[in-house]
Amino acid sequence: MKNMEENTHSSKVVYKGELLDVRRDKVTLPNGKIATREWIKHSGAICFVPILPNKKIGLIRQYRYAIKKHMIEIPAGKLVWGENPENCAKRELEEEIGFKASKFSFLTNIHPAIGFADEIMWLYLAEDLIKTNTKLDDDEFLEIIPTKLEDSLNMIWNGKLTDVKTIVGLV
Amino acid sequence: MKNMEENTHSSKVVYKGELLDVRRDKVTLPNGKIATREWIKHSGAICFVPILPNKKIGLIRQYRYAIKKHMIEIPAGKLVWGENPENCAKRELEEEIGFKASKFSFLTNIHPAIGFADEIMWLYLAEDLIKTNTKLDDDEFLEIIPTKLEDSLNMIWNGKLTDVKTIVGLV
Repeated sequence: MKNMEENTHSSKVVYKGELLDVRRDKVTLPNGKIATREWIKHSGAICFVPILPNKKIGLIRQYRYAIKKHMIEIPAGKLVWGENPENCAKRELEEEIGFKASKFSFLTNIHPAIGFADEIMWLYLAEDLIKTNTKLDDDEFLEIIPTKLEDSLNMIWNGKLTDVKTIVGLV
Repeated sequence: MKNMEENTHSSKVVYKGELLDVRRDKVTLPNGKIATREWIKHSGAICFVPILPNKKIGLIRQYRYAIKKHMIEIPAGKLVWGENPENCAKRELEEEIGFKASKFSFLTNIHPAIGFADEIMWLYLAEDLIKTNTKLDDDEFLEIIPTKLEDSLNMIWNGKLTDVKTIVGLV
């Protein structure tokens, strides 16, 4: 297989905000030419499929400002830099939907936006849940939507559920 | 269902590069508080599953600078602002893998990164392909990897194929 690696020539932080860290790099292409690559440095994130005590999927509904829509998703959260993904997922399970899981299984890693971000997500399955309390952040608003697996799959085929991590988690 | 909409108070372009357009908005939360939302304005993108004349899937392998890895993916491309998605997909089919499709079907829309980007992707199925020639951009290097559907699904279950649009397209 061909080596098409692009080697970093220089790297510059062009915007560092509260959430986004934007880099602009000069790279050497496989043909020796120089090109620009703009990308987002991301700490990574977790998401998980929670199987509620009544066997429904604990989907959540929240407003996503970037796309200006309410979205139905599996719960997710961004890692604090260097955080252990499984610990983060267990914390989010309790904070976002108010459960602890006796059984927590890693399913796979996924890359959501390789064209412009280095984000990697850890996808888990959370089972044997025990009720605790939600602890939402001040600027976090969400609704828990317990949904049968077959209904959530229908929402994918109908185009009502378009969030990629959720589709990958459910199919 | 609750209305959790966040209303835009002010919006500012904080970085405008060749590829990335970064906004920083002040929004009013459902509880009346003001919060900051940073996000990427994206023109949208297309991707498609090409069924080659020998019935294999026309996967491609390319280096993705943001994650510093060679990745195996279905072909994809960013829309020029306002471009018709199907026209863009047909153009990319010819440019990236060198085929025209007699049959081009829309499968679904997906949102890859709703936490920080408004990108929406149009996913298609390209069938009954007729060979033409590839026309790659100067800074585009890729390899076509014709793969049996069952082998590409195994690559998902083995964690060798982690790109979300590709997983959604194949499952």
